[in-house]
Amino acid sequence: MQLEAVTIDIGTSRPLVLLNTVDADELGAHPLDRVRIEHDEETTTGIVKRTDELVEPGTIGVTEPLSRVRGTVDVTLAGKPRSVRYIRRKLDDVELQPHELETIVRHIHEDRLSDIELGAYASAVYTNGFSLDETKHLTEAMSDVGQRLTWDAPVIADKHSVGGVAGNCVTPVMVAIVTAAGLTMPKTSSRAVTSPAGTADVMEVFCDVEFTTDEIESIVTETNGCLVWGGGVDLSPVDDKIIRAENPLSIDPPGQLMASVLSKKRSAGSTHVVIDIPYGEGSKVESLVAARKLADDLKRVGDHLDMDVSCAITHGADPIGRGIGPVLEARDVLAVLEGDGPESLRLKSVRLANILLEHCGVDASAVDALESGRALEQFGRIVAAQNGDPDIKSSDLEPGAESTTVRAERSGIATRVDNRQLCDLARRAGAPLDTRAGLVIHRTASERVEDDDPLYTIHAETPAKLAEAEALADRLEPIQVRSKADALVERR
Amino acid sequence: MQLEAVTIDIGTSRPLVLLNTVDADELGAHPLDRVRIEHDEETTTGIVKRTDELVEPGTIGVTEPLSRVRGTVDVTLAGKPRSVRYIRRKLDDVELQPHELETIVRHIHEDRLSDIELGAYASAVYTNGFSLDETKHLTEAMSDVGQRLTWDAPVIADKHSVGGVAGNCVTPVMVAIVTAAGLTMPKTSSRAVTSPAGTADVMEVFCDVEFTTDEIESIVTETNGCLVWGGGVDLSPVDDKIIRAENPLSIDPPGQLMASVLSKKRSAGSTHVVIDIPYGEGSKVESLVAARKLADDLKRVGDHLDMDVSCAITHGADPIGRGIGPVLEARDVLAVLEGDGPESLRLKSVRLANILLEHCGVDASAVDALESGRALEQFGRIVAAQNGDPDIKSSDLEPGAESTTVRAERSGIATRVDNRQLCDLARRAGAPLDTRAGLVIHRTASERVEDDDPLYTIHAETPAKLAEAEALADRLEPIQVRSKADALVERR
Repeated sequence: MQLEAVTIDIGTSRPLVLLNTVDADELGAHPLDRVRIEHDEETTTGIVKRTDELVEPGTIGVTEPLSRVRGTVDVTLAGKPRSVRYIRRKLDDVELQPHELETIVRHIHEDRLSDIELGAYASAVYTNGFSLDETKHLTEAMSDVGQRLTWDAPVIADKHSVGGVAGNCVTPVMVAIVTAAGLTMPKTSSRAVTSPAGTADVMEVFCDVEFTTDEIESIVTETNGCLVWGGGVDLSPVDDKIIRAENPLSIDPPGQLMASVLSKKRSAGSTHVVIDIPYGEGSKVESLVAARKLADDLKRVGDHLDMDVSCAITHGADPIGRGIGPVLEARDVLAVLEGDGPESLRLKSVRLANILLEHCGVDASAVDALESGRALEQFGRIVAAQNGDPDIKSSDLEPGAESTTVRAERSGIATRVDNRQLCDLARRAGAPLDTRAGLVIHRTASERVEDDDPLYTIHAETPAKLAEAEALADRLEPIQVRSKADALVERR
Repeated sequence: MQLEAVTIDIGTSRPLVLLNTVDADELGAHPLDRVRIEHDEETTTGIVKRTDELVEPGTIGVTEPLSRVRGTVDVTLAGKPRSVRYIRRKLDDVELQPHELETIVRHIHEDRLSDIELGAYASAVYTNGFSLDETKHLTEAMSDVGQRLTWDAPVIADKHSVGGVAGNCVTPVMVAIVTAAGLTMPKTSSRAVTSPAGTADVMEVFCDVEFTTDEIESIVTETNGCLVWGGGVDLSPVDDKIIRAENPLSIDPPGQLMASVLSKKRSAGSTHVVIDIPYGEGSKVESLVAARKLADDLKRVGDHLDMDVSCAITHGADPIGRGIGPVLEARDVLAVLEGDGPESLRLKSVRLANILLEHCGVDASAVDALESGRALEQFGRIVAAQNGDPDIKSSDLEPGAESTTVRAERSGIATRVDNRQLCDLARRAGAPLDTRAGLVIHRTASERVEDDDPLYTIHAETPAKLAEAEALADRLEPIQVRSKADALVERR
């Protein structure tokens, strides 16, 4: 069918074509069918959207990714992409071949799948899982469609946390310790997605975090390390597209999780990786058994990719550090480097850094690096290379001036600290966009609490945000205090 | 967050809201998240689409289904709909409770699920299936959200074919026979979706098929029957929305299929239903074992719904009748009623009608009704009641004048007649929109064929469409002829 192509903006980055119902019926094209468009001796495929109004009969509307389709074009019905057949095979619990996984990844990368099909992919992986072989091939395929960083050093250290823990900002401390020991550790991190602060958000309190590949290379050449935002480099770009399909369903199947983590590490050129797997209520990994299995599988897939992977299973139920939110976590990080700061953050950073040092075959002590001030000095060098002030002190970092402290209503033991609720509160107070917003936690689980003791303080940048967070705090109980002497919480 | 609502047309019937990235970040709203919109003391939920261009910061774009949202509105992040949690449970292979299925159906009906979530629903049902209990509850829930037809007669006869067979237009013949025997059979049928003609398309050759509920009632009062388009009445409307999610994946899981069929029958007020289950290569049901299981399950779910279901397992690999396409099938139908016509169509209609008559407890013979001319007379009455010409003859029905006959290139036996390829050819020739377009099949499977015998004739309304169908015919071989004497097909 001959149609006149017009570009049309319907707020999508997908390669859609809009057909008037009359033309669509004539073609036999249903919603989400594909059409083949021949134009200028080129052939392009688009996903069909039918409309009575947006385009006239005789016209085909094309979205931005297809904007090179112009003039009079020839449109015919096309088959489904091969990747849909492979997704269907995974729904049938068939083990996928390397070329099938590679095709699925490529089609997701090129936005050739509809949301129905992406939902089916996420569901199929969730219900039927991936074998270790499939995970290995998927990891390679995901890594291959993006950018690859290369480094001169033979050993490139890296770390990753499977996530889910509030205020868990060990990365800057680890990078400072490990690079102070002479290792190369070019660390790319994410911004907050559903949390109150990602590592990139925390680092942005000190310095710039968005750099080009060339700029990153020169920072690493100068300082052995970097602490930059990963979104600025195109590492395993399909990962975000797959996560977009998993998020609405709140699923994160292990095979996909491993491929996501390791494909980014492979693309980043890392050779030695420590992966922190927090487990427990509220974290992604719920049981110790599941954490051990994930650790073993990550190491096996790493072997296949010639990457030395070591895993640290950690407690995920409690927050690490005292602060939650960009500035408050930055203050904890710098305090630890200064030789002070919350013990939980210092301890976890030291333990993970020691594992990474040992894993890379370096005979150095994390505690030495901290106590000697070498880690702090090294952190300052990285901050300076990333256009920040190397002489900043933790005491310079002030949280939002609007604040409320929530106090205990009885004496007892803090029995439960709910990460999820603390994160929700910090976000409601404005984090991560309001960098000074967030929480300071005064009591952690199993600590003794007296009546009217402060439990946590909410900081916000504006009275309105503080009021919103206070309203939420009234409905939550993120830190529960129980008296062992009384079976009742209260009587009314 | 306070935003100014504007209505925006992006060619969708879903309740989307467009947020500028700046506002979306501030809210913490990701693509496909939901927001709660408070306006005029009412609360509405929308699915988030982020945009840099289509709406300004401070503004919220709402699509047509949300057009009642106007003026300054208060927008907050909302949780996921409960139905998504239930879909997730089905992905986890948990048996769903009646209220959970009811919620899923209602949310699909109200377009509250994103395509990712709909794809997950279809995938979950496909991989984990429904128990008979779940199928029963799903059927009721699907039926309950639409219209219900009610009739005075105690017995309401109905039929359904699970589909997949070309030219399988037994329904008009059956309705004529069964209503001639005094039974009430108000038949609603579909138009073609991927086939060259649905029963409604075939009936439209004779008369109108789109009527309101009131009009249908008066046609049935007058004639005991009708042959109308089901799309005109709102029976089990979620069915189409679920099929839209299944189509891209080419899946049609049995539990969902049963609920789709039986919910429509329940809503149509049917008490006695015969279901035709064609099986074999190219049909929806591939094996006799699967057909038997489906038949038993359909009867059981029918029992639960107080509906008498009887199933007929038929051969699905070969076409029924000679014609494919609206006019060509209408000609076969009328020829059978006139006492002539293709034997395969006559035989199948008689067998199914006899089953339905017996099933309804009526002592009458389908062959008698045909041979006495009572069925033809009754068909004329229904056609007249639907504003058609009751005196039309099959010889009045002329196929498209542009035609080509494809002939055998060797002698032998027609070993394989490919339904799918025949349907593709008929559609390429213009069916169902060009009502006179389609195919006439001259040889069926296992018939003796001499070299140069006609195999099938393509009819089209225009030379251009004929040329398109001819070009496709050159690439296909819908009727294969094999010579038993020669292992080679040909030598080149």
